[in-house]
Amino acid sequence: MTDRIREFLRQRTEDGPCVVVDLDVVRSNYEAFVRSLPDTSVFYAVKANPAPEILSLLAELGSSFDCASVGEIEMALAAGASADRISYGNTIKKERDIARAFELGVRLYAVDCEAEVEKIVRAAPGVRVFCRILCDGAGAEWPLSRKFGCAPEMAPDVLEAAHRGGLEAYGVSFHVGSQQANLGAWDSALATAAGVFRECATRGVPLKMVNMGGGFPARYLKDVPGVPAYGNAIFQALTDHFGNNLPQTIIEPGRGMVGDAGLIEAEVVLISRKSADDTVRWVYLDIGKFHGLAETMDEAIRYPIRTPKDGDATSPCVLAGPTCDSVDVLYEKTPYELPVSLSIGDKVLIESCGAYTTTYSTVGFNGFAALASYVI
Amino acid sequence: MTDRIREFLRQRTEDGPCVVVDLDVVRSNYEAFVRSLPDTSVFYAVKANPAPEILSLLAELGSSFDCASVGEIEMALAAGASADRISYGNTIKKERDIARAFELGVRLYAVDCEAEVEKIVRAAPGVRVFCRILCDGAGAEWPLSRKFGCAPEMAPDVLEAAHRGGLEAYGVSFHVGSQQANLGAWDSALATAAGVFRECATRGVPLKMVNMGGGFPARYLKDVPGVPAYGNAIFQALTDHFGNNLPQTIIEPGRGMVGDAGLIEAEVVLISRKSADDTVRWVYLDIGKFHGLAETMDEAIRYPIRTPKDGDATSPCVLAGPTCDSVDVLYEKTPYELPVSLSIGDKVLIESCGAYTTTYSTVGFNGFAALASYVI
Repeated sequence: MTDRIREFLRQRTEDGPCVVVDLDVVRSNYEAFVRSLPDTSVFYAVKANPAPEILSLLAELGSSFDCASVGEIEMALAAGASADRISYGNTIKKERDIARAFELGVRLYAVDCEAEVEKIVRAAPGVRVFCRILCDGAGAEWPLSRKFGCAPEMAPDVLEAAHRGGLEAYGVSFHVGSQQANLGAWDSALATAAGVFRECATRGVPLKMVNMGGGFPARYLKDVPGVPAYGNAIFQALTDHFGNNLPQTIIEPGRGMVGDAGLIEAEVVLISRKSADDTVRWVYLDIGKFHGLAETMDEAIRYPIRTPKDGDATSPCVLAGPTCDSVDVLYEKTPYELPVSLSIGDKVLIESCGAYTTTYSTVGFNGFAALASYVI
Repeated sequence: MTDRIREFLRQRTEDGPCVVVDLDVVRSNYEAFVRSLPDTSVFYAVKANPAPEILSLLAELGSSFDCASVGEIEMALAAGASADRISYGNTIKKERDIARAFELGVRLYAVDCEAEVEKIVRAAPGVRVFCRILCDGAGAEWPLSRKFGCAPEMAPDVLEAAHRGGLEAYGVSFHVGSQQANLGAWDSALATAAGVFRECATRGVPLKMVNMGGGFPARYLKDVPGVPAYGNAIFQALTDHFGNNLPQTIIEPGRGMVGDAGLIEAEVVLISRKSADDTVRWVYLDIGKFHGLAETMDEAIRYPIRTPKDGDATSPCVLAGPTCDSVDVLYEKTPYELPVSLSIGDKVLIESCGAYTTTYSTVGFNGFAALASYVI
């Protein structure tokens, strides 16, 4: 909670939940990444929060952009980023979208199989590609599936195919898993990446770049290492595995850039018990899984919640959203401790909501509007 | 797949996935409910698909509407429903939303606790309320949590509080769980409802109505009983538990009304393997969990998928969406058999997508537009 957000909320008159992002925090997060990893290019993961004000600030500060679609590429360009600062980082692209990105000037593309390389050879001749490799994601709070990336043993084949097709086989990417608190995760991924570099070199396909993806955590309820700790661990791992022939490096922070820059203000709609002897209270907010808090799925992300009654005695609550959808429950398996004095109508502040809230909101499920967003 | 949808898709020129709903199927589903449960009022669950064309057709056919919010109430009114055909069926309502619904003429409200009754006493004096009771949902493919409803033993207290507050304690509601294929589920719920009726009668609070909720299935991959079978089972259970003093009854079909009336056309974006010896293929579509197929969460709903290569030999595939989100995988635990000859660029038809697709779509996650919807 910053003073600027507090003042904004004090003056807000509209009804309904909203997210408020403070650009000063985004700026300071960007600067922390640059300071901690001075030789690494920062590509902001637009999908975390594509608010135009955030993209414009980051473009102005010199950030590059990791885009998932032509739509996001257009947003980054509109915010003032030049095409040479944009990566089309989605390994799953329609050929006509590749062609459109190429027309827009984008020259850096992600791949993880030969079929994708073939599309790029046809639709974006001569561009740089990097091959995403699978990583086990151990230690991440939001571990990734096998959806993106290929087995590291297959990566040299993919990159060699790119090379043969006249593309620049530029490097390797990985993602250690979102909200990754285990600093060692980057070490094992970088060891694997170095192996792909060696194999490609023996095939006459010299690689230049390692895209280390995202995974940098925001601070939710549990404490996490700060950006400098990540910077040190990564620099050490790079030196260990690449010696004095360090590759160019890229990071793609999304949550780590904007997560703690925003919070959601919501309202308690109802507090009830299911039976006379129920030991937990049910607390229903005017926001839930379908209007911004999708990352509570499986109770993965546990947001800090502030109430006007903090300090009073607490008791366990099931926390749920306002829709007529039984899936719209935020915390039930591990109930949330909230003040016994909490009342219907109280406003609560859900912290670290700057990332993956506005974009996960539905268009209007149950007739409730999509999450209102303010960037100040 | 109807001829009208086939012809519409043949002529469509826009790019990207879309859902197409055929109103003729909605009409015939509505008529089947009326025919199978002639003494029961049909309240369409607007949240399943609030497309104005669907609401207008149903209003014209005489349907009533189950609304989750003031937003949905306004949609139903705009479609031509009169306020006396609207139920504010959400047990979680802000007091100012209750006041707004009352202003709009709505006179039927759901509750499941005394705190909600108190709001209604203040904001909507004299209206009818029904108390939702918990049901175990056994047999449902999308079983409900304990989010809505109170223990049946508490319901008479809630209804008595309403009565004391000058409201009309009108009845009881339950929901057997979505996509409920077990006909016996209604029997046990109706037995419980009859018990609440008896207890309330002894307290001088005579109830009149049982709202039997939704749960009527759409046909996905597994066969389900038809609407007439549900009608028979429900009529039998009503007679068993209420004798010749049958209550007024309401049903709230959503999925059962529009699920099989629509389908999604999507495109194969990529087909790949993760390693040279991978036994499953990964098939990526241009639609996934965040743009309409949210109900594949935990692989709950298994949609029938038609391809232009149907009839060819098949092999197991992991099916995934197009976003840079590792959660955006549709079927992985139980892979989906698809033709070996399926190619990048092929169009596929995902059937029974008329319900809970457009409304679950995000506003534009990853820069992909919300799901396009056509009602013909």
